[in-house]
Amino acid sequence: MTDAAPPAVVLLSGGLDSTTVLAIAAAAGQAIHALSFAYGQRHAVELECAARQARRFGARAHEVVDLAHMGRLVAPATALVASSHLEVPRGRDLEGDAATIPVTYVPARNTLFLAYALAWAEALGARDLWIGVNALDYSGYPDCRPEFIAAFERTANLATRAGVEGRGFTIHTPLIDLRKSEIIARGAALGVEYGDTVSCYAPTIAGDGRPLACGRCDSCQLRREGFAAAGIADPTAYVPG
Amino acid sequence: MTDAAPPAVVLLSGGLDSTTVLAIAAAAGQAIHALSFAYGQRHAVELECAARQARRFGARAHEVVDLAHMGRLVAPATALVASSHLEVPRGRDLEGDAATIPVTYVPARNTLFLAYALAWAEALGARDLWIGVNALDYSGYPDCRPEFIAAFERTANLATRAGVEGRGFTIHTPLIDLRKSEIIARGAALGVEYGDTVSCYAPTIAGDGRPLACGRCDSCQLRREGFAAAGIADPTAYVPG
Repeated sequence: MTDAAPPAVVLLSGGLDSTTVLAIAAAAGQAIHALSFAYGQRHAVELECAARQARRFGARAHEVVDLAHMGRLVAPATALVASSHLEVPRGRDLEGDAATIPVTYVPARNTLFLAYALAWAEALGARDLWIGVNALDYSGYPDCRPEFIAAFERTANLATRAGVEGRGFTIHTPLIDLRKSEIIARGAALGVEYGDTVSCYAPTIAGDGRPLACGRCDSCQLRREGFAAAGIADPTAYVPG
Repeated sequence: MTDAAPPAVVLLSGGLDSTTVLAIAAAAGQAIHALSFAYGQRHAVELECAARQARRFGARAHEVVDLAHMGRLVAPATALVASSHLEVPRGRDLEGDAATIPVTYVPARNTLFLAYALAWAEALGARDLWIGVNALDYSGYPDCRPEFIAAFERTANLATRAGVEGRGFTIHTPLIDLRKSEIIARGAALGVEYGDTVSCYAPTIAGDGRPLACGRCDSCQLRREGFAAAGIADPTAYVPG
């Protein structure tokens, strides 16, 4: 990467998908500005993974924005915030339930994340935003679909000085039509250490501080099947039994 | 207002426009959930006005979200954040400069504000968002134009469970095609106390804590001319001289 590398904002949760996007954006020669959010998620341990992965892929900056206030406001409507009374579903039939948006949906999450990414990008003079949404092996969230991304990109280019003055924004979604196994194969080829990513919606923390994945939530199911289908050894630490 | 009043999220800065929108939404029978942001703006005193105005118009809730972190990230790109090195322009020729987006533009501000409003609205079961954007007597910000609002509304309805399940969101912009004088006349008829709103981009704080408007920034110019054109006495306290 040279000093002429174009700046980019990469949304980075510390999970499997966003870490793969980080690797792809770095390989594309972008000057990475990684952006993470603390919104009171059940799996805040993933933010530590995000910080290590950002360093590993040479990020110029890594910001963690505190969304705890908004997390409390949306807690009644999502199981993915630790203070919610809703439970993370386990062992759900993802194919049978494909038409249902599960309780792990977080209201307007990707809209809010992309709005932040857009604000930072414009201030940086960056024109590229990267996000690890995926519309195949996913939980049915509406804000992971290509039509949402296209609508947000259009909005971004109407909303901003950079958009109006013609140097518009591009939202890169390199995973959007990949199977989970293809995502894993791509990342593995780029050197992603998947053992240092967290996908589980509700991990247990082991005595040594390591997160142990439940193995049964939607996200664990998709991840587990992805490694199996890719023929790559799954480095995830699961709770015993 | 009855208990059956439909909930709504009203973006409320404590300025003239958003306080007028608050009055209009209350008069329309909505159960008001007011949303303000502390982003390190030069005119944070307006947040105190917002709190008083929310109480005055019977808001069920008023949340102030701390965006100071993002404020610091965008400070190099806007004069409207107190930590910026950029200066708020005074005595600008608004008609002559109509094609220019001024340095008081804040990157992606309304996108971010509406994203927050959307998240809270979905969690509340609200379908109505209210915002005081205006495309006539304004500073030329791209995110005050009707095409931006329409694009955001479309994005919101693709992004969310509520949108996908058919109970979509509406973004109300009752001021969008009004002159400033018409906004003032409308609010005055609804009992808005404009003396307790702040429009100035860089007010001085008097010894008694009252904000004194500069009278010369874009926002003061538009406000002052609005009162004059409406034939309503301007209750704004300006710096002497």
